[in-house]
Amino acid sequence: MKRIALDVMGGDLGISASVPGLDRYIRNCESCDFVFDLFGNEREIMKQLRTFPAVEKQLYSIHDTSDSVIQASEKPAITVKKGRGTSMFEAIAHVANGKADAVVSSGNTGAFMVLSKFLIGTIDGIDRPALVSMLPNANGKTVMLDLGANTLCTSTKLVQFALMGRAVARVLLQLPSPRVGLLNIGTERSKGTEELEEAYTLLENTADIQFVGFVEGTDITNGKVDVVVTDGFSGNVALKTMEGTVKYITDFMRKEFAASVVTKIGYMLSKRVFDALRNAIDPRVHNGAPLVGLNKVAVKSHGSSDEIRVANAISVATNLVTSDFIPKIEHSLAGVHSEGK
Amino acid sequence: MKRIALDVMGGDLGISASVPGLDRYIRNCESCDFVFDLFGNEREIMKQLRTFPAVEKQLYSIHDTSDSVIQASEKPAITVKKGRGTSMFEAIAHVANGKADAVVSSGNTGAFMVLSKFLIGTIDGIDRPALVSMLPNANGKTVMLDLGANTLCTSTKLVQFALMGRAVARVLLQLPSPRVGLLNIGTERSKGTEELEEAYTLLENTADIQFVGFVEGTDITNGKVDVVVTDGFSGNVALKTMEGTVKYITDFMRKEFAASVVTKIGYMLSKRVFDALRNAIDPRVHNGAPLVGLNKVAVKSHGSSDEIRVANAISVATNLVTSDFIPKIEHSLAGVHSEGK
Repeated sequence: MKRIALDVMGGDLGISASVPGLDRYIRNCESCDFVFDLFGNEREIMKQLRTFPAVEKQLYSIHDTSDSVIQASEKPAITVKKGRGTSMFEAIAHVANGKADAVVSSGNTGAFMVLSKFLIGTIDGIDRPALVSMLPNANGKTVMLDLGANTLCTSTKLVQFALMGRAVARVLLQLPSPRVGLLNIGTERSKGTEELEEAYTLLENTADIQFVGFVEGTDITNGKVDVVVTDGFSGNVALKTMEGTVKYITDFMRKEFAASVVTKIGYMLSKRVFDALRNAIDPRVHNGAPLVGLNKVAVKSHGSSDEIRVANAISVATNLVTSDFIPKIEHSLAGVHSEGK
Repeated sequence: MKRIALDVMGGDLGISASVPGLDRYIRNCESCDFVFDLFGNEREIMKQLRTFPAVEKQLYSIHDTSDSVIQASEKPAITVKKGRGTSMFEAIAHVANGKADAVVSSGNTGAFMVLSKFLIGTIDGIDRPALVSMLPNANGKTVMLDLGANTLCTSTKLVQFALMGRAVARVLLQLPSPRVGLLNIGTERSKGTEELEEAYTLLENTADIQFVGFVEGTDITNGKVDVVVTDGFSGNVALKTMEGTVKYITDFMRKEFAASVVTKIGYMLSKRVFDALRNAIDPRVHNGAPLVGLNKVAVKSHGSSDEIRVANAISVATNLVTSDFIPKIEHSLAGVHSEGK
C-alpha cells in the first residue's frame, strides 16, 4: 500500500479542515489504495475522527507530535533547527526516510520549501524546488512556477524553473515540446530586471527548449504558452490576484442575478454555464500545488484551506504518486546543471 | 478653453486608434470645452480626420512631428536625449511649457514616465511619478500604484507611493482617511523582501496614515483596503493578470452560453447582468492611468489601445483637469520629503 503523510496541524484552520478534508477525499476517491500517516496532536485527531466514520481504522495511523506548530509568521530558515517535533517537520521527515510516498501540508509555504529541501533533497541539477500550479487557459492548461517558495530568484534559478516547468508540462500535459515564456512587464527584450535579461539570454541559448521569450500577465490565461516562469513573489501575486478576480466576478454576478425575477429565471436556465465555469476556475477545486524539483512528492495546500481544498490537495498527491511523477520528472531533467548552492 | 495634448502616434495602433478615439470622445462628451493639440505626422492626421467630421476644425490644432516614433522596445532613459522631435516628447513638452493642461499617450510606458519627469517635473517631495489605476472592488474602488512606471522600488519610494495613493483616494474617492496596504505574498510581518520590511516600518511610523500592513493579491478586489501600494513590476503583473482573467472568464461564458438553446435564452434574460459586469470590469472602459506625482496631468493609455480605450483615456484626462486634480494632490502631499534623487 502506498502511504501519504498528512501534516494535520498546518494551515489557518488546522485540524478542523484536515480531518474533514481527509474524510471527504476518502468518500470521493475511486480506488482508495492509500494509507494515511497523520501527524499532529493525537488526542485532538482522535476526537475529530470520531465524527468521521468514513476514515476507517485500517486507513490511517496517527503520529503524535509536539504541541508547537510552525506558525505562518515563522521565518522559514529557523525551522530547520527548531522545527523538529512539529507536525510539518515530522511529516516531511517520514517521507524523506522512505516511510511514505508523499507529504501534504497547508502550513507555512516558506517553511515547507526549506524543510523539504533540507530533509528530502532536490533532484540532481536543481538547487531549489518551486511551487507549481496548473492554471486554466483558453486552450487547456498553463503550468506556472514559482508561486511563492522562492521570493527572489537569480537568472540561473529561473532557467532551472523553466526546465522544471517544461518537465511538468511534458509529464502532466503530455506535451512533447511545451512553449515556455518568462513573465515580464512587456514582451520587448528591453523590458524588466537584470535577472530577467540574463535569464532570457541563457534560455535563448539552451538547447532543446521551445522558449518564446517574455510574456505578460495576460498570457497566463490566453493559451499563448504552456509554461509561465517567474520568481515566487510575482508568481504569488499573480496567482492570488487571479483568485481575487474570480471571486469578485462570481460575487458580482450572484448579486446581480438575484436582483430581479427575470434574471433569476435567466440564472436557472444558465446553471450549466456557471457549473462549468466553477469547475474550470474555482481555486478550491484546483487546490494543491506540488513542490517540484524534490526527490519525493510534496504538495502544498492553500494556507486558508477548508475541507474541500484539503481533499483536492490530497488527491493531487495521490495522483502524482500513482502516475510515477518523480521518476518521470527526473528523467526529463537528466543533464541539468545546478549552481551548486 | 482648456487644452489636451494628444500623442497621436503612440501605441500599437498609433494614428488609426488615436483619431477615431478622439472622434468617439467628442461624439460622447457632455460639455466639450476642450481643444486638442494633436502631435504626429500632419499629413496622416489630416487624412484620418477627413473620415471623422465630428472632429471639427475649431476643436484641434496639428503639430507636425518628426517621422521617428518612440518604439515600445526603446530604452526609456535614451529618449531624454534622442526623443526630441517625436510626437510623445513634443506633446509632453507642450504641457510642460504651459501651452496645454494635460497630455495623453498610448506609447512606451517607461519613456512616458522618464520624459514626463524630465520635462514636467515632480511635485515637491516626490522623486518619481507612479502610474495609478482605480480598480473595482467589492465595495467600490481600489486605488493601485505603481502599475509599471518604476520596475524596482526602494522602501522610500514605496512610502511616497503610499502617500500619493492616499492623496488620490482622498481626491477621487472622497475618502478622508483611506486604508492603505502594502502588496506582499502574505500578511505576516516576516514575509517578503527587505524593501517591503523597511517600507512597513517606515509606514508604521508615518503620522496621519491609516496603514493596515501587508495585503495579498486577493485583497486588490475584496474591499479590505482603499489603496494598494507596490512596485511597478508586481503592479503591472497583477493588473495584466486581472485583465487576462476577466477575458478568460467572459470568453468562457460566451462559448458556454452559445452551446444550447436553453442557455441562449438564459443569456438573453440575463443580459442586464452581463452589461453591468462589463461596465464594472471591462479594461477598455477603465483605460487611462494617470501618472501621479507630476506638476501636470499626464495620462497613460494602454499600449494596445483601440478607439474605445483612447476615448476613455482622453476623458480621464479632461476629468482630472476639470476637477483641479493637480492642486488638490499638491495640497494633500504638502510636507512630504523626498530622497532627493
